[in-house]
Amino acid sequence: MFRQATDKRVAVLVAPGLEEIEGLTVVDLLYRAGIPCDTVAVADTREVTSSHEVTIVCDRRIGEAGFSFDDYDMLVLPGGMPGTRNLAASKELGEALVAHDKAGLPVSAICAAPTVLAGLGILEGRHACGFPGTEGELAKGGAIVGYDEVTVDGNVTTSRGMGTAIPFGLAIVARYLGQRRADDLGRSVVYKA
Amino acid sequence: MFRQATDKRVAVLVAPGLEEIEGLTVVDLLYRAGIPCDTVAVADTREVTSSHEVTIVCDRRIGEAGFSFDDYDMLVLPGGMPGTRNLAASKELGEALVAHDKAGLPVSAICAAPTVLAGLGILEGRHACGFPGTEGELAKGGAIVGYDEVTVDGNVTTSRGMGTAIPFGLAIVARYLGQRRADDLGRSVVYKA
Repeated sequence: MFRQATDKRVAVLVAPGLEEIEGLTVVDLLYRAGIPCDTVAVADTREVTSSHEVTIVCDRRIGEAGFSFDDYDMLVLPGGMPGTRNLAASKELGEALVAHDKAGLPVSAICAAPTVLAGLGILEGRHACGFPGTEGELAKGGAIVGYDEVTVDGNVTTSRGMGTAIPFGLAIVARYLGQRRADDLGRSVVYKA
Repeated sequence: MFRQATDKRVAVLVAPGLEEIEGLTVVDLLYRAGIPCDTVAVADTREVTSSHEVTIVCDRRIGEAGFSFDDYDMLVLPGGMPGTRNLAASKELGEALVAHDKAGLPVSAICAAPTVLAGLGILEGRHACGFPGTEGELAKGGAIVGYDEVTVDGNVTTSRGMGTAIPFGLAIVARYLGQRRADDLGRSVVYKA
Protein backbone atom coordinates (compact mmCIF):
# COMPACT_ATOMS: atom_id res chain seq x y z
CA MET A 1 0.00 0.00 0.00
CA PHE A 2 1.31 3.42 -1.00
CA ARG A 3 1.17 6.10 1.71
CA GLN A 4 2.12 9.40 0.15
CA ALA A 5 4.70 11.29 2.23
CA THR A 6 5.52 14.22 -0.08
CA ASP A 7 3.97 16.17 -2.97
CA LYS A 8 7.22 15.98 -4.93
CA ARG A 9 7.35 13.45 -7.77
CA VAL A 10 10.33 11.53 -9.15
CA ALA A 11 10.85 10.21 -12.71
CA VAL A 12 13.04 7.17 -13.37
CA LEU A 13 14.05 7.33 -17.04
CA VAL A 14 13.87 3.89 -18.63
CA ALA A 15 15.68 3.45 -21.96
CA PRO A 16 16.12 0.19 -23.91
CA GLY A 17 19.13 -1.67 -22.52
CA LEU A 18 18.93 -0.11 -19.07
CA GLU A 19 20.32 -1.88 -15.99
CA GLU A 20 16.89 -2.73 -14.62
CA ILE A 21 17.93 -3.19 -10.98
CA GLU A 22 19.48 0.28 -10.84
CA GLY A 23 16.19 1.79 -12.00
CA LEU A 24 13.74 -0.44 -10.17
CA THR A 25 15.54 -0.39 -6.80
CA VAL A 26 14.84 3.36 -6.75
CA VAL A 27 11.19 2.73 -7.69
CA ASP A 28 10.92 0.08 -4.97
CA LEU A 29 12.45 2.16 -2.15
CA LEU A 30 10.53 5.30 -3.09
CA TYR A 31 7.26 3.36 -3.15
CA ARG A 32 8.00 2.00 0.32
CA ALA A 33 8.87 5.51 1.53
CA GLY A 34 5.72 7.11 0.08
CA ILE A 35 7.52 9.25 -2.51
CA PRO A 36 5.54 9.40 -5.79
CA CYS A 37 7.61 7.95 -8.63
CA ASP A 38 6.92 7.13 -12.27
CA THR A 39 8.86 4.95 -14.66
CA VAL A 40 9.17 7.00 -17.86
CA ALA A 41 10.08 5.24 -21.10
CA VAL A 42 12.70 6.94 -23.26
CA ALA A 43 11.54 4.88 -26.22
CA ASP A 44 8.82 4.58 -28.85
CA THR A 45 6.65 2.41 -26.61
CA ARG A 46 5.98 2.09 -22.89
CA GLU A 47 7.34 -1.46 -23.01
CA VAL A 48 11.09 -1.36 -22.58
CA THR A 49 13.54 -4.29 -22.44
CA SER A 50 16.57 -4.14 -20.18
CA SER A 51 20.17 -5.16 -20.84
CA HIS A 52 19.32 -8.50 -19.18
CA GLU A 53 16.23 -9.08 -21.33
CA VAL A 54 13.68 -8.13 -18.68
CA THR A 55 10.70 -6.31 -20.19
CA ILE A 56 9.06 -3.62 -18.07
CA VAL A 57 5.84 -1.76 -18.84
CA CYS A 58 6.48 1.88 -17.90
CA ASP A 59 3.94 4.27 -16.40
CA ARG A 60 4.52 6.95 -19.01
CA ARG A 61 6.52 7.69 -22.13
CA ILE A 62 8.48 10.80 -23.15
CA GLY A 63 6.63 12.47 -25.99
CA GLU A 64 3.23 10.91 -25.36
CA ALA A 65 0.20 13.18 -25.04
CA GLY A 66 0.21 14.99 -21.72
CA PHE A 67 3.77 14.11 -20.80
CA SER A 68 5.81 16.94 -19.29
CA PHE A 69 9.11 17.00 -17.42
CA ASP A 70 7.55 19.83 -15.38
CA ASP A 71 5.59 17.17 -13.47
CA TYR A 72 8.80 16.00 -11.82
CA ASP A 73 11.00 17.29 -9.06
CA MET A 74 13.81 14.76 -9.59
CA LEU A 75 15.05 13.01 -12.72
CA VAL A 76 16.83 9.68 -12.12
CA LEU A 77 19.07 8.02 -14.71
CA PRO A 78 19.83 4.29 -14.32
CA GLY A 79 22.93 2.98 -16.11
CA GLY A 80 23.52 -0.14 -18.17
CA MET A 81 24.51 -0.54 -21.78
CA PRO A 82 23.22 0.38 -24.28
CA GLY A 83 20.73 2.06 -21.92
CA THR A 84 23.11 4.87 -21.02
CA ARG A 85 23.86 5.59 -24.68
CA ASN A 86 20.14 5.66 -25.39
CA LEU A 87 19.59 8.19 -22.59
CA ALA A 88 22.43 10.34 -23.95
CA ALA A 89 20.90 10.20 -27.44
CA SER A 90 17.59 11.76 -26.32
CA LYS A 91 17.72 15.48 -27.11
CA GLU A 92 14.47 16.04 -25.20
CA LEU A 93 15.87 14.38 -22.08
CA GLY A 94 19.16 16.26 -22.38
CA GLU A 95 17.35 19.59 -22.53
CA ALA A 96 15.20 18.63 -19.56
CA LEU A 97 18.25 17.64 -17.50
CA VAL A 98 20.00 20.95 -18.23
CA ALA A 99 16.85 22.94 -17.45
CA HIS A 100 16.28 20.94 -14.28
CA ASP A 101 19.82 21.54 -13.09
CA LYS A 102 19.66 25.26 -13.94
CA ALA A 103 16.49 25.51 -11.85
CA GLY A 104 18.32 23.88 -8.94
CA LEU A 105 16.11 20.79 -9.10
CA PRO A 106 17.65 17.42 -8.24
CA VAL A 107 19.15 15.11 -10.87
CA SER A 108 20.53 11.68 -10.00
CA ALA A 109 22.49 9.10 -11.98
CA ILE A 110 24.11 5.73 -11.29
CA CYS A 111 26.65 3.42 -12.92
CA ALA A 112 27.51 4.64 -16.45
CA ALA A 113 24.73 7.25 -16.43
CA PRO A 114 26.71 10.00 -14.64
CA THR A 115 28.57 10.27 -17.99
CA VAL A 116 25.30 11.60 -19.46
CA LEU A 117 25.37 14.41 -16.89
CA ALA A 118 29.09 14.97 -17.60
CA GLY A 119 28.37 15.28 -21.33
CA LEU A 120 25.80 18.00 -20.62
CA GLY A 121 28.19 20.01 -18.43
CA ILE A 122 26.15 19.32 -15.29
CA LEU A 123 29.09 17.87 -13.34
CA GLU A 124 31.39 20.87 -13.93
CA GLY A 125 33.13 21.59 -10.61
CA ARG A 126 31.02 19.06 -8.76
CA HIS A 127 31.90 15.99 -6.72
CA ALA A 128 30.61 12.87 -8.45
CA CYS A 129 31.21 9.14 -8.87
CA GLY A 130 30.39 6.50 -11.47
CA PHE A 131 31.00 2.98 -12.69
CA PRO A 132 34.66 1.87 -12.61
CA GLY A 133 36.20 2.96 -15.89
CA THR A 134 34.00 6.01 -16.39
CA GLU A 135 36.15 8.25 -14.17
CA GLY A 136 38.04 9.77 -17.13
CA GLU A 137 34.83 10.78 -18.85
CA LEU A 138 33.49 12.30 -15.64
CA ALA A 139 36.74 14.24 -15.10
CA LYS A 140 36.62 15.42 -18.73
CA GLY A 141 33.20 16.90 -17.90
CA GLY A 142 34.79 18.81 -15.02
CA ALA A 143 33.79 16.48 -12.16
CA ILE A 144 35.83 16.03 -9.01
CA VAL A 145 35.74 12.24 -9.07
CA GLY A 146 35.22 10.19 -5.89
CA TYR A 147 34.88 6.51 -5.09
CA ASP A 148 32.21 6.36 -2.39
CA GLU A 149 29.10 4.28 -3.04
CA VAL A 150 27.07 7.49 -3.35
CA THR A 151 28.17 11.10 -3.78
CA VAL A 152 25.78 13.97 -3.07
CA ASP A 153 26.84 17.45 -4.21
CA GLY A 154 24.02 19.94 -3.89
CA ASN A 155 21.24 18.90 -6.29
CA VAL A 156 23.36 16.21 -7.98
CA THR A 157 23.49 12.64 -6.65
CA THR A 158 25.68 10.00 -8.31
CA SER A 159 26.44 6.36 -7.56
CA ARG A 160 28.62 3.57 -8.88
CA GLY A 161 26.78 0.45 -10.02
CA MET A 162 24.12 -2.21 -9.58
CA GLY A 163 25.76 -3.18 -6.27
CA THR A 164 25.23 0.36 -4.91
CA ALA A 165 21.62 0.72 -6.05
CA ILE A 166 20.24 0.42 -2.51
CA PRO A 167 22.42 3.17 -0.97
CA PHE A 168 21.63 5.27 -4.08
CA GLY A 169 17.90 4.80 -3.54
CA LEU A 170 18.22 5.47 0.18
CA ALA A 171 20.11 8.72 -0.54
CA ILE A 172 17.14 9.82 -2.65
CA VAL A 173 14.76 8.92 0.18
CA ALA A 174 16.97 10.89 2.60
CA ARG A 175 16.77 13.98 0.36
CA TYR A 176 12.98 14.05 0.66
CA LEU A 177 12.32 12.57 4.09
CA GLY A 178 15.57 12.87 6.04
CA GLN A 179 18.39 10.50 6.93
CA ARG A 180 16.59 8.86 9.84
CA ARG A 181 13.69 7.73 7.63
CA ALA A 182 16.18 6.41 5.07
CA ASP A 183 18.12 4.51 7.73
CA ASP A 184 14.90 3.00 9.10
CA LEU A 185 13.85 1.98 5.59
CA GLY A 186 17.23 0.32 4.96
CA ARG A 187 16.90 -1.68 8.16
CA SER A 188 13.31 -2.66 7.31
CA VAL A 189 14.47 -4.38 4.10
CA VAL A 190 17.38 -6.09 5.93
CA TYR A 191 19.97 -3.91 4.24
CA LYS A 192 23.35 -3.89 5.95
CA ALA A 193 24.86 -0.44 5.32
CA MET B 1 25.43 -10.10 -24.23
CA PHE B 2 24.63 -13.50 -22.74
CA ARG B 3 27.50 -16.00 -22.67
CA GLN B 4 26.13 -19.33 -21.54
CA ALA B 5 28.25 -20.92 -18.80
CA THR B 6 26.10 -23.93 -17.85
CA ASP B 7 23.36 -26.15 -19.35
CA LYS B 8 21.31 -25.89 -16.15
CA ARG B 9 18.33 -23.54 -16.24
CA VAL B 10 16.76 -21.53 -13.41
CA ALA B 11 13.13 -20.42 -13.04
CA VAL B 12 12.22 -17.29 -11.07
CA LEU B 13 8.54 -17.62 -10.12
CA VAL B 14 6.74 -14.31 -10.54
CA ALA B 15 3.36 -13.96 -8.84
CA PRO B 16 1.19 -10.83 -8.64
CA GLY B 17 2.40 -8.70 -5.74
CA LEU B 18 5.94 -10.05 -5.76
CA GLU B 19 8.85 -8.00 -4.41
CA GLU B 20 10.28 -7.28 -7.86
CA ILE B 21 13.84 -6.52 -6.77
CA GLU B 22 14.15 -9.88 -5.01
CA GLY B 23 13.18 -11.67 -8.22
CA LEU B 24 14.93 -9.47 -10.76
CA THR B 25 18.23 -9.21 -8.90
CA VAL B 26 18.54 -12.98 -9.37
CA VAL B 27 17.66 -12.63 -13.07
CA ASP B 28 20.23 -9.84 -13.44
CA LEU B 29 23.12 -11.63 -11.73
CA LEU B 30 22.42 -14.94 -13.47
CA TYR B 31 22.34 -13.22 -16.85
CA ARG B 32 25.68 -11.59 -16.14
CA ALA B 33 27.09 -14.95 -15.02
CA GLY B 34 25.81 -16.83 -18.10
CA ILE B 35 23.31 -19.02 -16.21
CA PRO B 36 20.09 -19.49 -18.25
CA CYS B 37 17.13 -18.09 -16.33
CA ASP B 38 13.45 -17.56 -17.15
CA THR B 39 10.90 -15.42 -15.40
CA VAL B 40 7.82 -17.64 -15.03
CA ALA B 41 4.46 -16.04 -14.30
CA VAL B 42 2.33 -17.71 -11.62
CA ALA B 43 -0.71 -15.91 -12.96
CA ASP B 44 -3.31 -15.95 -15.75
CA THR B 45 -1.14 -13.77 -18.00
CA ARG B 46 2.57 -13.27 -18.61
CA GLU B 47 2.20 -9.65 -17.49
CA VAL B 48 2.54 -9.49 -13.72
CA THR B 49 2.43 -6.42 -11.47
CA SER B 50 4.64 -6.24 -8.38
CA SER B 51 3.81 -5.05 -4.87
CA HIS B 52 5.31 -1.67 -5.90
CA GLU B 53 3.19 -1.41 -9.06
CA VAL B 54 5.95 -2.34 -11.49
CA THR B 55 4.64 -4.44 -14.38
CA ILE B 56 6.96 -7.10 -15.81
CA VAL B 57 6.37 -9.18 -18.92
CA CYS B 58 7.53 -12.71 -18.03
CA ASP B 59 9.25 -15.16 -20.39
CA ARG B 60 6.78 -17.96 -19.70
CA ARG B 61 3.66 -18.76 -17.71
CA ILE B 62 2.79 -21.80 -15.59
CA GLY B 63 0.10 -23.75 -17.39
CA GLU B 64 0.71 -22.37 -20.87
CA ALA B 65 1.24 -24.79 -23.76
CA GLY B 66 4.67 -26.40 -23.57
CA PHE B 67 5.47 -25.24 -20.04
CA SER B 68 7.08 -27.83 -17.80
CA PHE B 69 8.89 -27.57 -14.47
CA ASP B 70 11.13 -30.36 -15.80
CA ASP B 71 12.92 -27.71 -17.88
CA TYR B 72 14.42 -26.24 -14.71
CA ASP B 73 17.19 -27.22 -12.38
CA MET B 74 16.44 -24.57 -9.75
CA LEU B 75 13.17 -22.94 -8.69
CA VAL B 76 13.52 -19.48 -7.09
CA LEU B 77 10.79 -17.85 -5.01
CA PRO B 78 10.91 -14.06 -4.48
CA GLY B 79 8.97 -12.69 -1.51
CA GLY B 80 6.72 -9.69 -1.16
CA MET B 81 3.06 -9.45 -0.27
CA PRO B 82 0.65 -10.60 -1.56
CA GLY B 83 3.17 -12.29 -3.88
CA THR B 84 4.18 -14.88 -1.31
CA ARG B 85 0.56 -15.78 -0.59
CA ASN B 86 -0.04 -16.12 -4.33
CA LEU B 87 2.92 -18.50 -4.66
CA ALA B 88 1.63 -20.54 -1.72
CA ALA B 89 -1.84 -20.74 -3.31
CA SER B 90 -0.54 -22.41 -6.50
CA LYS B 91 -1.10 -26.17 -6.17
CA GLU B 92 0.91 -26.80 -9.33
CA LEU B 93 3.90 -24.86 -7.98
CA GLY B 94 3.63 -26.56 -4.58
CA GLU B 95 3.73 -29.98 -6.18
CA ALA B 96 6.69 -28.97 -8.33
CA LEU B 97 8.62 -27.66 -5.30
CA VAL B 98 8.06 -30.90 -3.38
CA ALA B 99 9.03 -33.04 -6.39
CA HIS B 100 12.09 -30.86 -7.00
CA ASP B 101 13.22 -31.17 -3.40
CA LYS B 102 12.60 -34.94 -3.35
CA ALA B 103 14.78 -35.25 -6.46
CA GLY B 104 17.54 -33.33 -4.67
CA LEU B 105 17.23 -30.40 -7.07
CA PRO B 106 17.84 -26.89 -5.72
CA VAL B 107 15.05 -24.67 -4.42
CA SER B 108 15.68 -21.12 -3.23
CA ALA B 109 13.49 -18.56 -1.47
CA ILE B 110 13.92 -15.06 -0.07
CA CYS B 111 12.09 -12.71 2.31
CA ALA B 112 8.62 -14.09 3.15
CA ALA B 113 8.87 -16.87 0.55
CA PRO B 114 10.78 -19.36 2.74
CA THR B 115 7.41 -19.73 4.53
CA VAL B 116 6.11 -21.35 1.32
CA LEU B 117 8.84 -23.98 1.62
CA ALA B 118 8.06 -24.36 5.35
CA GLY B 119 4.40 -24.96 4.57
CA LEU B 120 5.32 -27.77 2.19
CA GLY B 121 7.59 -29.48 4.74
CA ILE B 122 10.72 -28.72 2.73
CA LEU B 123 12.51 -26.96 5.62
CA GLU B 124 12.04 -29.87 8.09
CA GLY B 125 15.35 -30.26 9.95
CA ARG B 126 17.09 -27.75 7.72
CA HIS B 127 18.93 -24.52 8.45
CA ALA B 128 17.03 -21.60 6.92
CA CYS B 129 16.36 -17.87 7.29
CA GLY B 130 13.64 -15.45 6.25
CA PHE B 131 12.18 -11.98 6.62
CA PRO B 132 12.09 -10.65 10.20
CA GLY B 133 8.84 -11.85 11.74
CA THR B 134 8.60 -15.07 9.71
CA GLU B 135 10.90 -17.01 12.05
CA GLY B 136 8.01 -18.58 13.97
CA GLU B 137 6.42 -19.91 10.79
CA LEU B 138 9.77 -21.30 9.61
CA ALA B 139 10.32 -23.00 12.98
CA LYS B 140 6.78 -24.41 12.86
CA GLY B 141 7.80 -26.04 9.57
CA GLY B 142 10.74 -27.67 11.34
CA ALA B 143 13.46 -25.23 10.22
CA ILE B 144 16.54 -24.47 12.31
CA VAL B 145 16.25 -20.69 11.99
CA GLY B 146 19.31 -18.48 11.42
CA TYR B 147 19.89 -14.79 10.88
CA ASP B 148 22.64 -14.63 8.26
CA GLU B 149 21.93 -12.78 5.00
CA VAL B 150 21.87 -16.12 3.18
CA THR B 151 21.64 -19.70 4.48
CA VAL B 152 22.59 -22.65 2.29
CA ASP B 153 21.64 -26.12 3.54
CA GLY B 154 22.18 -28.74 0.86
CA ASN B 155 19.80 -28.03 -2.00
CA VAL B 156 17.89 -25.33 -0.09
CA THR B 157 19.00 -21.68 -0.15
CA THR B 158 17.12 -19.03 1.82
CA SER B 159 17.63 -15.32 2.38
CA ARG B 160 16.09 -12.47 4.36
CA GLY B 161 14.82 -9.56 2.30
CA MET B 162 15.15 -7.03 -0.50
CA GLY B 163 18.34 -5.76 1.14
CA THR B 164 19.92 -9.23 0.87
CA ALA B 165 18.90 -9.89 -2.74
CA ILE B 166 22.45 -9.44 -4.07
CA PRO B 167 24.10 -11.94 -1.69
CA PHE B 168 21.16 -14.29 -2.40
CA GLY B 169 21.76 -14.02 -6.15
CA LEU B 170 25.50 -14.42 -5.71
CA ALA B 171 24.94 -17.60 -3.63
CA ILE B 172 22.97 -19.01 -6.59
CA VAL B 173 25.80 -18.08 -8.96
CA ALA B 174 28.28 -19.74 -6.57
CA ARG B 175 26.25 -22.98 -6.62
CA TYR B 176 26.65 -23.27 -10.40
CA LEU B 177 30.00 -21.62 -11.07
CA GLY B 178 31.88 -21.59 -7.76
CA GLN B 179 32.55 -19.00 -5.08
CA ARG B 180 35.38 -17.29 -6.92
CA ARG B 181 33.19 -16.48 -9.92
CA ALA B 182 30.48 -15.19 -7.58
CA ASP B 183 32.97 -13.00 -5.71
CA ASP B 184 34.33 -11.61 -8.99
CA LEU B 185 30.79 -10.87 -10.17
CA GLY B 186 29.98 -9.08 -6.91
CA ARG B 187 33.05 -6.88 -7.30
CA SER B 188 32.24 -6.18 -10.96
CA VAL B 189 28.89 -4.61 -9.97
CA VAL B 190 30.54 -2.60 -7.14
CA TYR B 191 28.93 -4.72 -4.46
CA LYS B 192 30.53 -4.42 -1.05
CA ALA B 193 30.08 -7.82 0.65
